[in-house]
Amino acid sequence: MALIVQKFGGTSVKDRSRIFNVARIVANTRNAGNEVVVVVSAQGDTTDDLIAKAAEITGNPSSREMDMLLATGEQISISLLAMALQEIGVSAVSLTGWQAGFVTDRAYSRARIKRLDTERVESELARNRVVVVAGFQGLNRSDDITTLGRGGSDTSAVALAAALHADRCQIFTDVEGVYTADPRKIPKATRLKEITFDEMLELASLGAQVLNNRSVELAKKYGVELEVLSSINPIPGTIVKEETKVEGMLIKGVAKDDNVAVISILGVPDVPGMSFKVFSLLAQRNINVDIILQSSGDAGKKDLIFTVPLGDAESAMAVLKEHRNRFGGGEITVNKDCAKVSVVGAGMQSHPGVASHMFEALGGQNINIHMISTSEIKISVIIDKADADRAVAAIHDAFIQ
Amino acid sequence: MALIVQKFGGTSVKDRSRIFNVARIVANTRNAGNEVVVVVSAQGDTTDDLIAKAAEITGNPSSREMDMLLATGEQISISLLAMALQEIGVSAVSLTGWQAGFVTDRAYSRARIKRLDTERVESELARNRVVVVAGFQGLNRSDDITTLGRGGSDTSAVALAAALHADRCQIFTDVEGVYTADPRKIPKATRLKEITFDEMLELASLGAQVLNNRSVELAKKYGVELEVLSSINPIPGTIVKEETKVEGMLIKGVAKDDNVAVISILGVPDVPGMSFKVFSLLAQRNINVDIILQSSGDAGKKDLIFTVPLGDAESAMAVLKEHRNRFGGGEITVNKDCAKVSVVGAGMQSHPGVASHMFEALGGQNINIHMISTSEIKISVIIDKADADRAVAAIHDAFIQ
Repeated sequence: MALIVQKFGGTSVKDRSRIFNVARIVANTRNAGNEVVVVVSAQGDTTDDLIAKAAEITGNPSSREMDMLLATGEQISISLLAMALQEIGVSAVSLTGWQAGFVTDRAYSRARIKRLDTERVESELARNRVVVVAGFQGLNRSDDITTLGRGGSDTSAVALAAALHADRCQIFTDVEGVYTADPRKIPKATRLKEITFDEMLELASLGAQVLNNRSVELAKKYGVELEVLSSINPIPGTIVKEETKVEGMLIKGVAKDDNVAVISILGVPDVPGMSFKVFSLLAQRNINVDIILQSSGDAGKKDLIFTVPLGDAESAMAVLKEHRNRFGGGEITVNKDCAKVSVVGAGMQSHPGVASHMFEALGGQNINIHMISTSEIKISVIIDKADADRAVAAIHDAFIQ
Repeated sequence: MALIVQKFGGTSVKDRSRIFNVARIVANTRNAGNEVVVVVSAQGDTTDDLIAKAAEITGNPSSREMDMLLATGEQISISLLAMALQEIGVSAVSLTGWQAGFVTDRAYSRARIKRLDTERVESELARNRVVVVAGFQGLNRSDDITTLGRGGSDTSAVALAAALHADRCQIFTDVEGVYTADPRKIPKATRLKEITFDEMLELASLGAQVLNNRSVELAKKYGVELEVLSSINPIPGTIVKEETKVEGMLIKGVAKDDNVAVISILGVPDVPGMSFKVFSLLAQRNINVDIILQSSGDAGKKDLIFTVPLGDAESAMAVLKEHRNRFGGGEITVNKDCAKVSVVGAGMQSHPGVASHMFEALGGQNINIHMISTSEIKISVIIDKADADRAVAAIHDAFIQ
């Protein structure tokens, strides 16, 4: 008898028929002789509806009250799913985040899980019940409800799987697994049987919206084997784990992220500590800097070029301009019409041909490369946003075909 | 500095403008130098919407899961009201039922409050915050969410007022207080300045939908002074307390309840224990029997006539017919076209003229009386439903006008 944690997102429980679809998947897993813990998100548009309710009251809600409000979304879906399971003859019980033992820090709206007291979940499992747990939420040490922020339900599921020493954590989504590229854009994209945690992390951070990064990091840390699979099409999905079998294919995927802006600071004095001055300003405002490129300009000067998330571009520009005198007073510009396209695959660095093969594919399409960044398992380029879809198709053709 | 508990129902917080209306009432009370604890119900139709969601899943939801679902309604309204209070500059914090310390028994959907741990509420008050508490809900000893059933938010408010030794518990409603009759039907109806707990209990149980009976019983038990007042019109309402000043008026109100059915069992053997057989069958099914009339029929037989809530009439008839042989096998009939009309006032029994004056008023309108029931503070008659409104008007004219 295995213990399996199954996570279903908001779309998977958005209405009556989808809830019963989930109930049948859970029932099949249970009837195959497994213990099952289910983690669910809020139904479809519930979270947006709740945010709209708050927006009617205030433009600046307290994050504590916002978490109190939003946590009702999952509480609704867990009770409905438990009812559906009972309706089809499966013994089930729903638990909120705090009932399931999620203890978090005090950071409302983006809380981190500090501890998971699994006593209640284990006692319900011992009573032969399917346990339906509210994802995305917990309780801080003041007994106040917190939420885990974006992708929080994935994180809840992985944390439960780790704490319960589950045999597998299945993340059900609208896609059938992890693909070599976005299958809606690249018809030739193929589903991967397996992928490593690190490859998945790179793909996720590069804009492949399959799994939340925090959940993959947590799975890697605790060695929780993940499976990404479809809640609609009952076929095996993609396994995410530490080591994968050699599959012949070096490149695991091509990803596009057009949520980037490129900021350039020209004529920065070429003295020690200058980069720190720039990037600490951004870090204080919680702005993540991704690719950084530093080029030498005139004598004693350099240019600093880097990417930030598109949504942070304006506030980054504001703070940089305010302090422009601290780094030379030169021109500061932002380019919001760009995209990051990346290839991901373990062991890439030992195959020097990958980069040139990628650049050849882009050159063949007359696509200009603004920036290049490489790591052990990925190569990213910044190009014009208008070229991004053509770039993904050309690179996919070149590597995966 | 007084401590005041204020309770607002679902209509009072149904949308943005009503929420801010409530926030201003609370702010005024706070700014007048009082400590304020606010108890709110779920917004407008939220509870009905949640019940409809459950009904899509199953015709027979588990009451535990139903309470888990319904408790989200108040959690939404407390967070929105706390946001509105903060928006107008009032320091506030919302607490769910379990955070506010409501410990109940295990009876889902109609739980009774066993204990109230006020530590958290008191510590928030000590931090100069308005405390916004979710009514209608609590937690049982298994750490599962329960709801208190119909009128539960009134009960929550009174229980909090009792436990906190509040100076007053204000119940805000859509009416401006307790009236001598339904003011929508009887234009001459007048608002009472004061009424005793017992009078209020009789009026509530007789269909005057102002205050829930459980909350009045609780207020009487713990000596909590209640005030029923309007959330729209800021005028003093009706005070409900143990002793009222002599006001000259003996009759405090005329109430109508057309949610009744009269059941007749004819030819019941006139032997000891027969009534118990009948009424224990109904009690086992949680059907409340109100007025009971027993008349002698043929030799050795009697007729048993009694009222039940209209909604329970069918199930009462089913169980009685199933066991008809246990009480004589005679005819069992139900009349659903009737109503109960009552006059309420303390000390009525020492004024024998009240009953005859009431019957005179009904006779003057040619209204036939089917059943009569009297207590220390009320006289009720069962009449045809079609006559009910005329009966209320005639009695009100006779006694109060």
